[in-house]
Amino acid sequence: MENFVYHNPAKIIFGKDQISQVGAETAAIGKKALLLTGGASVKQNGVYDKVLASLDEACVTVVEQSGIVPNPVIESVREGAELCKNKNIEIVLAVGGGSVIDAAKAIAAGATYDGDPWDFFKRIAVPEKPLPVGTVLTLSATGSEANGNTVISNPETGEKRPFYHSTLFPRFSILDPALTFTVPKDQTANGAIDILSHVFEQYFHNVKATPLQDGIAETIMRTVIDNAPVAIKKPDDYDARANLMWSSTLALNGLLVSGARGDWASHMIGHELSAKYGLAHGAALAIVFPNWMKRVYKVNIAKFARFAVNVWGMDKSTDAEELALGGIEATNRFFKETLGAKVTLGEHSIDGSRIDEMAESAMSISSLGSLVTFKKSDLVKIYESCL
Amino acid sequence: MENFVYHNPAKIIFGKDQISQVGAETAAIGKKALLLTGGASVKQNGVYDKVLASLDEACVTVVEQSGIVPNPVIESVREGAELCKNKNIEIVLAVGGGSVIDAAKAIAAGATYDGDPWDFFKRIAVPEKPLPVGTVLTLSATGSEANGNTVISNPETGEKRPFYHSTLFPRFSILDPALTFTVPKDQTANGAIDILSHVFEQYFHNVKATPLQDGIAETIMRTVIDNAPVAIKKPDDYDARANLMWSSTLALNGLLVSGARGDWASHMIGHELSAKYGLAHGAALAIVFPNWMKRVYKVNIAKFARFAVNVWGMDKSTDAEELALGGIEATNRFFKETLGAKVTLGEHSIDGSRIDEMAESAMSISSLGSLVTFKKSDLVKIYESCL
Repeated sequence: MENFVYHNPAKIIFGKDQISQVGAETAAIGKKALLLTGGASVKQNGVYDKVLASLDEACVTVVEQSGIVPNPVIESVREGAELCKNKNIEIVLAVGGGSVIDAAKAIAAGATYDGDPWDFFKRIAVPEKPLPVGTVLTLSATGSEANGNTVISNPETGEKRPFYHSTLFPRFSILDPALTFTVPKDQTANGAIDILSHVFEQYFHNVKATPLQDGIAETIMRTVIDNAPVAIKKPDDYDARANLMWSSTLALNGLLVSGARGDWASHMIGHELSAKYGLAHGAALAIVFPNWMKRVYKVNIAKFARFAVNVWGMDKSTDAEELALGGIEATNRFFKETLGAKVTLGEHSIDGSRIDEMAESAMSISSLGSLVTFKKSDLVKIYESCL
Repeated sequence: MENFVYHNPAKIIFGKDQISQVGAETAAIGKKALLLTGGASVKQNGVYDKVLASLDEACVTVVEQSGIVPNPVIESVREGAELCKNKNIEIVLAVGGGSVIDAAKAIAAGATYDGDPWDFFKRIAVPEKPLPVGTVLTLSATGSEANGNTVISNPETGEKRPFYHSTLFPRFSILDPALTFTVPKDQTANGAIDILSHVFEQYFHNVKATPLQDGIAETIMRTVIDNAPVAIKKPDDYDARANLMWSSTLALNGLLVSGARGDWASHMIGHELSAKYGLAHGAALAIVFPNWMKRVYKVNIAKFARFAVNVWGMDKSTDAEELALGGIEATNRFFKETLGAKVTLGEHSIDGSRIDEMAESAMSISSLGSLVTFKKSDLVKIYESCL
């Protein structure tokens, strides 16, 4: 097992009707909130009204910023940070999925920083004392509700960049699975792919003696594989939605990587597809991950074989390499057939013309990958295999 | 899944040589510490010297209190609380196992309370603003390093009582598995039994749709079952010690019960054996748990059958009741044969003369059990089956 620090101070308030807690939780931190939302869905499904009513009851004054888009953009962050400065905001309250929460964290950091918030993503500044963030989660996917990560896109430069800081953990997150009943099938599928991808990033490593990390990862993967199809077929199945929601949090709250090691090359490869072609995060990962697996599995055949047995229920007496390839194929088939995801770039009408540019950009921030560390030529080959 | 709140702000610093962090972590909170220790072992194995050196380097002034015993007593808590008041202590630093950490929490609460600290355990007072607590863990067992629990004994009244408060989570805990290399075989075994018992308390419930909680619990149980015998045979096996240590934390840091439900009758039944006869916590649980299982398994045969398959590797095509009984028997055999624990009261020369008194005392605080709620007559029968 590797050395680690695990420190996750986010308070998770999970369950039916817990949205009613948002006013009291917010008021305990600050009386003037920036209420950050995405598209129209929270207004259509009643979530917005419930949040406002609860805030009102707790005497929280609200300044609103709406229109945070999937793959949230730096311009919205700049706008939110200015709003916070001008209106003396005390807490940023995100009501939405990972995009809204990611934007909230970047806004909270930008609100107490004199420079351009993009500096954080260029790694030339770190937040000093960001405003506190609270969240009401409406989509099970990114895990942003319980970590210090934010991923923001910069359309001006064509970049999509992640940033982590220990000060960016939400102070509280309200996880009411019933709020996800109205999530459409394709977003439910993309969310499930995102959760699985987070587990993959932290499961396929070469660290020895990690039975807790491996077993917890396999539990989350099996749970997503069992529950995502139920939620797609019966969107108001509470237990399926609850299991997906808690999976999303556990997959990226720091637990899985504690004692193990994260890879994250696939995420950077996928981010380029979102930045250049606007692919949803989960949609990009559905294409990238099986191809990443095929490229790297030989480095740790035993782990890929274990994955096939413990996650996909394959017969452990089978030859290890056959198992490894079988697990990868099962993953690809699950994405394609069960979740209805596109698993090639061709299905999105994306050709190979920008592969070199994407590989260059993905390499620009830091070295890529841990199980296997990639050179640019490796990235090119992975993108080509995705066509 | 049940509704829940999960909020665990403890910072875990885990790994080889992490004891060197104790000075900086302590100094970040306070410059005057009460250094709380148990017996002579921390002085013999060098832990004490390393802690003092690190505190000294960080310019932390130390007031010492040693001699905290297993099943720590309220008199030590009173003494520590007075020391904190008289010496203007800013942080209580526990260096030891669960007993020392439990005492530290009670002292920290007592230090800012005008009355008798036993009031907390009588449930007639709650801590207002306890002193912060830090820990250096030297025994993998109770999970006290990452929760708000404390269990204190009162020899004057013959009681052993648990208390939980959200303000009692350690601010940081240093988990260096190498510090447990010198833990003797019997204490290693008792620690493993304690960890397993914590999982049992939160695994055997009737809540539906808890695949994450069940799978994580099974992972921890398998990890303890695999690693405890290794640590007993080869005390300086780092990976075995590391896996036991992280198991101890995950078993009782709030994760397993989130969305599920705890039972805790067996702990209260066991606490009476410690209070009346001085049995070590793990030693008491080794006797109580298999007998509790035999008494309650029919309420949820499917769960006990699943336990036999997923934890003990039994053949899932076997009849469910046969599996359930097989899992219970495997547990009993593991305690007795693999860990070398005594599994009857008779082996401790304890007869049935105080059963009625223990049953009465165990019932005095609150109703007992969740999977099955016990009457006093049930407790009497369980104690009798332990003879």
